[in-house]
Amino acid sequence: MTEVVALLRDALDERVDTSDAALDDARSDKSGHRAAQRPLAVVRAASVADVQATLRIATATRTPVVTRGAGTGLAGGANTGEGEIALSVRDMNRILEVRPDDLLAVVEPGILNADLGRALAPDGLWWAPDPASREISTVGGNIATGAGGLLCAKYGVVRDAVLALDVVLADGRLISTGHRSVKGVTGYDLTALMIGSEGTLGVVVGATLKLRRLVPGETRTLTAQFSDVRAAAAGSAAVTAAGVQPAIMELMDAVSLAAVHALLGLPSPTPGATQLTVQTDGVAAASEQAEIARILSAAGGAVRLATDDVEAAQLWAIRRAMHPAMESLGTALIEDISVPRSALPAMFDEIARIETEYGLTIPTVCHAGDGNLHPNFIFDGDEVPERVWQAADALFRAAIALGGTLTGEHGIGVLKSRWLADELGDDQWSLQRGIKTVFDPAGILNPGKVFAAQP
Amino acid sequence: MTEVVALLRDALDERVDTSDAALDDARSDKSGHRAAQRPLAVVRAASVADVQATLRIATATRTPVVTRGAGTGLAGGANTGEGEIALSVRDMNRILEVRPDDLLAVVEPGILNADLGRALAPDGLWWAPDPASREISTVGGNIATGAGGLLCAKYGVVRDAVLALDVVLADGRLISTGHRSVKGVTGYDLTALMIGSEGTLGVVVGATLKLRRLVPGETRTLTAQFSDVRAAAAGSAAVTAAGVQPAIMELMDAVSLAAVHALLGLPSPTPGATQLTVQTDGVAAASEQAEIARILSAAGGAVRLATDDVEAAQLWAIRRAMHPAMESLGTALIEDISVPRSALPAMFDEIARIETEYGLTIPTVCHAGDGNLHPNFIFDGDEVPERVWQAADALFRAAIALGGTLTGEHGIGVLKSRWLADELGDDQWSLQRGIKTVFDPAGILNPGKVFAAQP
Ligand SMILES: Cc1cc2nc3c(=O)[nH]c(=O)nc-3n(C[C@H](O)[C@H](O)[C@H](O)COP(=O)(O)OP(=O)(O)OC[C@H]3O[C@@H](n4cnc5c(N)ncnc54)[C@H](O)[C@@H]3O)c2cc1C
Ligand SMILES: Cc1cc2nc3c(=O)[nH]c(=O)nc-3n(C[C@H](O)[C@H](O)[C@H](O)COP(=O)(O)OP(=O)(O)OC[C@H]3O[C@@H](n4cnc5c(N)ncnc54)[C@H](O)[C@@H]3O)c2cc1C
Repeated sequence: MTEVVALLRDALDERVDTSDAALDDARSDKSGHRAAQRPLAVVRAASVADVQATLRIATATRTPVVTRGAGTGLAGGANTGEGEIALSVRDMNRILEVRPDDLLAVVEPGILNADLGRALAPDGLWWAPDPASREISTVGGNIATGAGGLLCAKYGVVRDAVLALDVVLADGRLISTGHRSVKGVTGYDLTALMIGSEGTLGVVVGATLKLRRLVPGETRTLTAQFSDVRAAAAGSAAVTAAGVQPAIMELMDAVSLAAVHALLGLPSPTPGATQLTVQTDGVAAASEQAEIARILSAAGGAVRLATDDVEAAQLWAIRRAMHPAMESLGTALIEDISVPRSALPAMFDEIARIETEYGLTIPTVCHAGDGNLHPNFIFDGDEVPERVWQAADALFRAAIALGGTLTGEHGIGVLKSRWLADELGDDQWSLQRGIKTVFDPAGILNPGKVFAAQP
Repeated sequence: MTEVVALLRDALDERVDTSDAALDDARSDKSGHRAAQRPLAVVRAASVADVQATLRIATATRTPVVTRGAGTGLAGGANTGEGEIALSVRDMNRILEVRPDDLLAVVEPGILNADLGRALAPDGLWWAPDPASREISTVGGNIATGAGGLLCAKYGVVRDAVLALDVVLADGRLISTGHRSVKGVTGYDLTALMIGSEGTLGVVVGATLKLRRLVPGETRTLTAQFSDVRAAAAGSAAVTAAGVQPAIMELMDAVSLAAVHALLGLPSPTPGATQLTVQTDGVAAASEQAEIARILSAAGGAVRLATDDVEAAQLWAIRRAMHPAMESLGTALIEDISVPRSALPAMFDEIARIETEYGLTIPTVCHAGDGNLHPNFIFDGDEVPERVWQAADALFRAAIALGGTLTGEHGIGVLKSRWLADELGDDQWSLQRGIKTVFDPAGILNPGKVFAAQP
């Protein structure tokens, strides 16, 4: 194994980092999980050639490679362990081209989502995917996980926002999928296949992104408080069913809301109160806000309109404090199920049932505009207790039974590998595993992730 | 081979059609190409079980199967020849579910696109993909080809409008890809992989479609005539670059415009005149029309605003007569390249160069809003002359060199198989071929299509 490190050093010199800090850091992402042991080395690739050199050595020596962006993933996908190479593309962070006339940008994978946003804004452009982690996650990681964000109900997720990819294969060869034209049906859509593939098919070393123009006009924010979570879910489903399109529509259940108020030192909300926070934007922001206020009042919500941007920012600060509020309660396992929007009330019923059945409290926030829920399991210590996994199992089955899915935006990684076949079925699982083998016959790309558990 | 027909008859009885008319019909689509010989039989599947039965027999007897929708394809993908089974899903044409609250519909593959549209309209809904062939092509065929349409620059193509698919595999097993939730990143995106797969990976037997609400408000139409095609292309690129989003923006070059005027008995246009026809819609239809008129006038266009819907319909009738006008000139090979929108003027320069070089006239219409061009080669008789293929070859290379693609919406089929590796590169071609083998190890699904030519 030191032979592998020696080969890497020969080829990549000071880009190979075997410091204790680097090796420890590479063991984990933000899922709370970490690999049992340290990896062999961290390679900090600065170019496509560096990535190719690393993969050639990995193939020759049959050494597993885990590609890492910023390591903010919530599924353990980037965790690198014993005998593995951590291949960081974080230093490949240049913007190679911006074309306002074609609404596209060509970037390296390591650029942070928010840095790209700041670079595009002066041209009146943006890349729509806006994970809550956009200040700390990379565009390559967003692509590899198929990330979503707050604005995605209106403006789309990553899979709607990528035209073409440069990908280094397991053996070091470079392919280019897709094209710069907005239309094209030449062969299979390997660009779409790479999106959400979590480092199991190849390393994304370049991306041609589909941009949007910044939305003109103002934004408007309102909140609506409901006496229980089912009513709030029904309210958000009524907004969707009425055909008004909020830019953002977020739901916080009672425990989440109370925890955030406590963390921020705000007065306690009415016991049991759950809250929808809704933003409209564009030229119709005001009229859409009025329409949504009407629908939510009719659904029993106590509606409050933010009078200015300062108040709007205060309301959004409450939603944004969810993650820190959960961490203040203990170790948080953030789940990520998604259901059809009309099934939101039924899904909250299921969560209440599971809470009772397993004797747990499951504070939940929800991207209500697109039916994506983040139930949080809180526990002490590093290890997820078995009872939590059993409750999570019940949660996944409920979401799938409602026509939904195991993971709306975080991915399978190590954490959900054992449920993958439950959703896909054994036949589709095998097909997907077959595709993985076509791309990576030696099985060196992110082994132990996604397809680890045999159905 | 009669053994295969006997097995089919045993299992499927009167759904097996071996009449001369049926066998002859199955030899061709609308590409102008036809298989040299007749197929063994046409199976008219009425259910998923019929499709499964057919494929089980096909696998057991190693008989090739060509899935057919309505046979309106322009790439020869549905053409069925000697020793093959034509599997028509045209009779599986039910709408199984419409959910206005979740903006989805579940349909069988054989329903005609326009029939679906008529069924959805009373609920205020529509499925956005609107190929010019929507009255005669199936939703399953639209999915299998990844069809585009006139409105797709604003409202998206098929790949933006499918949530989930039921697919019968080559050996008769049924899998379900995707989910009913709008978000989901569980495993690889096999729904996207199926879209545009042209019958080579499996048979689409059910589809969960992502719907839109009908756009409120009126539509507005304008035309702008330019003295040459480059100026018209630059005009349309200026509209895109300015950030106004037309619902439809179509370009007709001088030869096309003159041919249509002749066919419809309209006064001849000014020699050399090319025309943009632009529709805006939604609440901002009028203001967007005014803005586009300003941009196109500034770009040198003679702009005419349709004063009412009757006049608008007349203007669109001109664009819609393109296909019959070409057929009135001879046999038409309709090409389908796509380029970044800013490259439209350059692509028209290339077409002019190729016309000169090969001594051909290449009348061209273009979905200018998304950079998808349909150059038409006109010739006598059934066989595409070798010089036309040489010119087409030059056309494809030019489109690829400009960052575009061989086919924007019609697919590879038999007609473009020999250029596929030129665009994909040998490595990506082999990966795609490898995926095909995972789905169809015996190679019985649409053999001779897409991947026929070895690179
Ligand atoms: C506070 C917080 C909020 C979050 N909010 C959201 C949210 O709103 N929406 C959302 O979707 N996610 C969210 N996440 C999760 C996470 O930020 C996303 O999954 C993000 O896309 C990961 O990007 P990354 O650069 O950190 O990737 P990593 O964590 O480094 O990697 C993630 C996976 O992608 C693979 N990978 C990374 N880069 C590449 C590449 N170049 N080529 C191939 N494979 C690669 C890795 O192998 C791994 O499997 C949040 C996380 C935190 C901590
Ligand atoms: C006048 C005219 C205008 C046209 N305009 C457009 C346009 O604007 N945009 C556009 O994109 N196309 C256009 N086309 C081309 C054609 O209509 C489309 O490709 C259409 O999607 C084909 O649908 P179909 O049902 O006729 O499929 P078919 O021609 O029967 O089949 C096409 C391909 O899909 C496969 N296939 C069909 N059904 C299934 C299934 N259920 N499962 C698996 N594979 C299947 C076949 O094997 C074949 O490879 C036009 C054609 C004509 C004649």
